[in-house]
Amino acid sequence: MSELSVNHLLGIKYLTKQDIELIFETADQFKEVINRPIKKVPSLRDITIANLFFENSTRTKLSFELAEKRLSADVINFSASQSSVKKGETLIDTVNNILSMKVDMVVMRHPNPGAGVFLSKHVDASIINAGDGAHEHPTQALLDSYSIREKLGSVKGKNVVIVGDILHSRVALSNIYALQLQGANVMVCGPKTLLPKYIKELGVKVETNLKKALEWCDVANMLRVQNERMDISYFPTTREYTQQFGVNKELLDGLDKDIVIMHPGPINRGVEITSDVADSKQAIILDQVENGVAVRMAVIYLLAAKIKQ
Amino acid sequence: MSELSVNHLLGIKYLTKQDIELIFETADQFKEVINRPIKKVPSLRDITIANLFFENSTRTKLSFELAEKRLSADVINFSASQSSVKKGETLIDTVNNILSMKVDMVVMRHPNPGAGVFLSKHVDASIINAGDGAHEHPTQALLDSYSIREKLGSVKGKNVVIVGDILHSRVALSNIYALQLQGANVMVCGPKTLLPKYIKELGVKVETNLKKALEWCDVANMLRVQNERMDISYFPTTREYTQQFGVNKELLDGLDKDIVIMHPGPINRGVEITSDVADSKQAIILDQVENGVAVRMAVIYLLAAKIKQ
Amino acid sequence: MSELSVNHLLGIKYLTKQDIELIFETADQFKEVINRPIKKVPSLRDITIANLFFENSTRTKLSFELAEKRLSADVINFSASQSSVKKGETLIDTVNNILSMKVDMVVMRHPNPGAGVFLSKHVDASIINAGDGAHEHPTQALLDSYSIREKLGSVKGKNVVIVGDILHSRVALSNIYALQLQGANVMVCGPKTLLPKYIKELGVKVETNLKKALEWCDVANMLRVQNERMDISYFPTTREYTQQFGVNKELLDGLDKDIVIMHPGPINRGVEITSDVADSKQAIILDQVENGVAVRMAVIYLLAAKIKQ
Repeated sequence: MSELSVNHLLGIKYLTKQDIELIFETADQFKEVINRPIKKVPSLRDITIANLFFENSTRTKLSFELAEKRLSADVINFSASQSSVKKGETLIDTVNNILSMKVDMVVMRHPNPGAGVFLSKHVDASIINAGDGAHEHPTQALLDSYSIREKLGSVKGKNVVIVGDILHSRVALSNIYALQLQGANVMVCGPKTLLPKYIKELGVKVETNLKKALEWCDVANMLRVQNERMDISYFPTTREYTQQFGVNKELLDGLDKDIVIMHPGPINRGVEITSDVADSKQAIILDQVENGVAVRMAVIYLLAAKIKQ
Repeated sequence: MSELSVNHLLGIKYLTKQDIELIFETADQFKEVINRPIKKVPSLRDITIANLFFENSTRTKLSFELAEKRLSADVINFSASQSSVKKGETLIDTVNNILSMKVDMVVMRHPNPGAGVFLSKHVDASIINAGDGAHEHPTQALLDSYSIREKLGSVKGKNVVIVGDILHSRVALSNIYALQLQGANVMVCGPKTLLPKYIKELGVKVETNLKKALEWCDVANMLRVQNERMDISYFPTTREYTQQFGVNKELLDGLDKDIVIMHPGPINRGVEITSDVADSKQAIILDQVENGVAVRMAVIYLLAAKIKQ
Repeated sequence: MSELSVNHLLGIKYLTKQDIELIFETADQFKEVINRPIKKVPSLRDITIANLFFENSTRTKLSFELAEKRLSADVINFSASQSSVKKGETLIDTVNNILSMKVDMVVMRHPNPGAGVFLSKHVDASIINAGDGAHEHPTQALLDSYSIREKLGSVKGKNVVIVGDILHSRVALSNIYALQLQGANVMVCGPKTLLPKYIKELGVKVETNLKKALEWCDVANMLRVQNERMDISYFPTTREYTQQFGVNKELLDGLDKDIVIMHPGPINRGVEITSDVADSKQAIILDQVENGVAVRMAVIYLLAAKIKQ
């Protein structure tokens, strides 16, 4: 069997096209597993995984936890709010302490971009980045591409637009890398104030007119409006955002084709997309969630295989 | 083997007498299991259960968790404080997300009355109501009746008084339904300001004199004084409450019989009941806790049997 | 096989020398287990353990959890922040409630000195003290001695200095008892204001000059500066503490021998010890963490053997 080119999943940036294919083929098998009555395999009985969440997260954490349990790994959870991090301990000391308890793999969400990369150079365990600030969120991008592949047969050659706050989004950046690696055409669409200055360097199309973007695309990935991150100087009101960048049924009905609607969740119903769109057959939002478990099982399984070598 | 008439446990209101009997006979078997050295059965290896607690809870949550683990189910925990609920996500979206990760059953505590019923109409999983506001707390009522049946042989024909803040109590309402369904005579006793206006419609006796209530009953179920819910307009002081509705040894010794004392916990010692009463042989408070695990195992087991059909 | 002289681990004060030897010999075996690919043994499938943490803790809690899981015990976690403790419930009621759910063993951290001893007299379960205020932290002292024994062959006859805030430290007190029981020579070193008045009664040497202490010792156990506990009247500034009681490379290089450096963590780098010392070969800080899991497995395993009798 083939293997990953990396020992960690720090970002899509570090993966090859073959890595992604291997993850998806492995995820296909785990998707079958989690749709059986008994959703577990005994594969990782010998692996202990620590979930270190230095930021709150519900769905990503639950998805990883379920993936780990269904692989029969031993799981310990650490969240910063209960932790000695507050006492001024360094990240490396915190993680080295946990690893000294014989932990093989660390799934980490951290507010600082690059926290996972930094850690991977200083500790002896396989690291999975579950989101590092506004930088990368690689498993989200993998499950997004996996869901496109499932819905449309392949990612290659598809036109995918990412709509919303590109500037603050780790989902956007990881998606751009993943889609390009697989040969999709990528466009970003959002208010100019929410596009990063280096956007052109990423080799993506830029569009500030949502209607034009939707006419061009096969898939629209609607980012969540992060009210908590929005600054008054970026964009005045949520209402204005919705008027210009929100997707509703009328807009979709005006297109000459059925595009696929994606969303990483949690949805602000009536903001990024209206409820009729979120609940329509074009939306694959809950498929994304389901595929998230299978894709994360695949990533963990493949990284564990490298540990055991 | 027989089966439940329902696919969810949303409230006692939806159960039949036969459902309760089936749950108790099943709980009898699980009570044997949890008193063996190995307290586990492999029955639900193929079931994943999510505990969604939108309100804090210690004992109910621990009791459900232990019940689930002793049935060998896979368990994930979600508490609102760490969740995206704060970010404005709807309840249905939160739950659908979790269910997309292939969860079979949801145990939910929620501050809104009817939250479980609402959810059961919109999502595809078996729902167990672990308390919905001041509405119902069906597993508590089941374990209470089970404990009476264990202590006195049966519930039928027994005189049971529920003492305290009936107005705000989900324990009271579920107990009234459960006791009536099984043919007990039910009385409520408390300050008038803490009795709901519709109390007569529930077909229960009402008594504001504790001594008379105790003289009438075989069992007194002493509700917890919810200091946090008490409003100055309902009742002036905790001391006054205790003087009029608190049970002490003297009161009990003045009766010509030994009545059974119950309490759903946590006890305010010296408020609803004095310590000597709480620790007396008449009190079956810790039996209630023990029976809670067995009864919850029974409910989960019987609902899971319906999923597998 | 031999057995412990106690039914609880409440403090080192209650152990015999033979108890400690038995724990260490058992820990030797578990240390082998956790260094195997499959780090689990099925020994305690029939034991349910509740971790009750009335104070925040990261590393101690994770260490106990891993120890319990690797023994295949069923584990439930209770933390005071989510609990009914706030509602005024007594400690005994809280614990009796949990025990009524058929829990065999309780691991408890509590802010009050003597909480574990008190509890052991009132409830029917095996209690492990995971820290009771400034009193004892017996598993920490056991893992510290185990680490000295591992590094130097034995504890007997070794000179061990404990440096820092002796007054507020449960680690110090438990270490003093454990080291003396095994025949080590114990010194404490710290500012006079942070030494308890009864220190002489403990039969330890007292030294306020760090250099002299280091010249005397084979092992220096550097306590964490508890900024949160430090009162301005005890010691003016952290900087002054570091100048007089902080260990740096220069100090160590000035000695005519290599002493062993220990720290219970989390480290304040640059305060108790400098980074070059913390990361040097003389420091066995991460070995302490690793040994913590093995020692806790041994304690739990040996206490469980007594339950099963």
